[in-house]
Amino acid sequence: MVNLNNKSVVFLESPKEYPIPGVHLKVESKMLDDELNEGELLTRNLYISLDPYLKTKMGGVGHPSIYKVGQALDSYVVSEVIASKNDKFPVGAVVFGNLGIEEYTRVRTSNDLKIIEDARESKVPLSSYVGALNLAGRTAYCSLIDIGKPKAGETIYVSAAFGGVGQIVGQISKILGLRVIGSAGSDEKVDYLVKTLKFDAAFNYKKGNIVESLRSAAPEGINIYYDNVGGETLEAALEVLNRFGRVVLCGMSSIYNRTTPYGIKNIILAILKSLKLEGFVANQFSDELEERFFKDVKSWLENGDIIYKEDITEGLENTPEAILGMFQGKTFGKAVVKVADL
Amino acid sequence: MVNLNNKSVVFLESPKEYPIPGVHLKVESKMLDDELNEGELLTRNLYISLDPYLKTKMGGVGHPSIYKVGQALDSYVVSEVIASKNDKFPVGAVVFGNLGIEEYTRVRTSNDLKIIEDARESKVPLSSYVGALNLAGRTAYCSLIDIGKPKAGETIYVSAAFGGVGQIVGQISKILGLRVIGSAGSDEKVDYLVKTLKFDAAFNYKKGNIVESLRSAAPEGINIYYDNVGGETLEAALEVLNRFGRVVLCGMSSIYNRTTPYGIKNIILAILKSLKLEGFVANQFSDELEERFFKDVKSWLENGDIIYKEDITEGLENTPEAILGMFQGKTFGKAVVKVADL
Repeated sequence: MVNLNNKSVVFLESPKEYPIPGVHLKVESKMLDDELNEGELLTRNLYISLDPYLKTKMGGVGHPSIYKVGQALDSYVVSEVIASKNDKFPVGAVVFGNLGIEEYTRVRTSNDLKIIEDARESKVPLSSYVGALNLAGRTAYCSLIDIGKPKAGETIYVSAAFGGVGQIVGQISKILGLRVIGSAGSDEKVDYLVKTLKFDAAFNYKKGNIVESLRSAAPEGINIYYDNVGGETLEAALEVLNRFGRVVLCGMSSIYNRTTPYGIKNIILAILKSLKLEGFVANQFSDELEERFFKDVKSWLENGDIIYKEDITEGLENTPEAILGMFQGKTFGKAVVKVADL
Repeated sequence: MVNLNNKSVVFLESPKEYPIPGVHLKVESKMLDDELNEGELLTRNLYISLDPYLKTKMGGVGHPSIYKVGQALDSYVVSEVIASKNDKFPVGAVVFGNLGIEEYTRVRTSNDLKIIEDARESKVPLSSYVGALNLAGRTAYCSLIDIGKPKAGETIYVSAAFGGVGQIVGQISKILGLRVIGSAGSDEKVDYLVKTLKFDAAFNYKKGNIVESLRSAAPEGINIYYDNVGGETLEAALEVLNRFGRVVLCGMSSIYNRTTPYGIKNIILAILKSLKLEGFVANQFSDELEERFFKDVKSWLENGDIIYKEDITEGLENTPEAILGMFQGKTFGKAVVKVADL
């Protein structure tokens, strides 16, 4: 197998607002030099995670891109090893880890790759390994436990509650005995949160005033706000948080696409109510917590205690549109691209 | 001694901006009914602390006053017991605790009062018991240790560094081996910070751009921001904080007097740099930490390791003007009123 034709999603330019296919990123076909050196692998990519932090990596107002022009974007990927000069990863092994957003990846350093031992008889869909069992799930679990410090009987509010992280935060909170309130951007999503994911209450943030919606869903206030949104929603949550409340700052999708950032006017409430607001990176947590995450979430998925709704786009060539749709709030669940079957 | 004439500073109305003498508060003379019941005390007040949080207690835009019209304001006070029906507090004892902003206080419940055993031969000025050894010092010490988590070799930036809390935060940080940067609102204060309090760098926030002043004082960034100011200064500190930085939200004097609050536009940096911002109330810390505070700060004051600059106004009748001056940034050091000598 020499000189394989490979489609990749490559970076063109940092988006000021939405990442537009053909302007800020595009699909490109190139011949892949697949003459492997010692230690290298060639993988056939199956499932690719799309996450909001891709916008951060592509740069924007005030923040440069980490990609060069023409370079393939990267993400979490489930992949099959199809050629190998590395004994740890034999041909036929199914792996997951950080790889290119492309059909095939020539892997020069495989340090972060892990083998899915039971891939061919997995009780959970393989796509879980780019979402619930990967960055989205790890982010949700570790930050909720470590920063949110949830206690049974407390109330948590999760924004973008139907996103890749939000779904898991809400459902773990239910398992831990909290009262869970979610918000999302359509009535269909709100219905799904309450009916399928068993949230105690949910509201459409596009209808009516967020503070009022939140107060009527949580008349006794909230103890934790899990923020995927920022902006006005963060301001509303600060109003409704009780004393010693915690804000897990996970994402600010409401401002990723804005050219002029929104100013938070009531941060003084953090003093008046002794609030904590904390941002994080997914890899800052202890190994012990990460191991607990994988064990717990895998068993919850297997038992059906957690349902993980994915919005799967078929075909690598449709990835740029899927990325745009994610930032426009059109995705129904965790955004994933299916490149090929195992 | 019956029906003592007593001057008090009483509440009139919540200030929208500055608390104006005669409009929002005033001095009033009243006869004090000093026929004590069992368990009560009568104290002659000596030193009274003036603190920025008085503005919060007086109410303002969106926050009601805790005082009724005509009620005496309260604060931390050093006082001499001049009549007593309580064996724990004999006549002649010098006490400190929360009492009225007035010449004499009839103390109905004395739970929070403490006796200064060595008052008549104290190595530190008695006024320390309303500032460095009381709320200002306890706030500074406990929040710096518990929320700021200072480590030797790190850099801390303290705003309003010459205020009652800021001075102590900066000097404790020096003792703990940090590099200390302060800002204040006049060149005279800046000079004092560097020359007398031995800060590593200081700047006048009214001159030039705060981000630039901070970057040139801390070319390698800061690890802790101790915020007494809020608003633009908080925004500037978020820019200059390094990864995993901590913000101790102690006060927001820049917005206490504003009718329209300032919007913080770069809170997304808390996500991009894994920052923590945390507010607190002075009484939330452990008893053990409070004991360490008193022991450490008392010995540092006695040794001269900490210098505590007070701006002492003589005479209760001048208190309303001193309160206004504090909010206008005219106070040079911790604001204290001296009502009488021991």
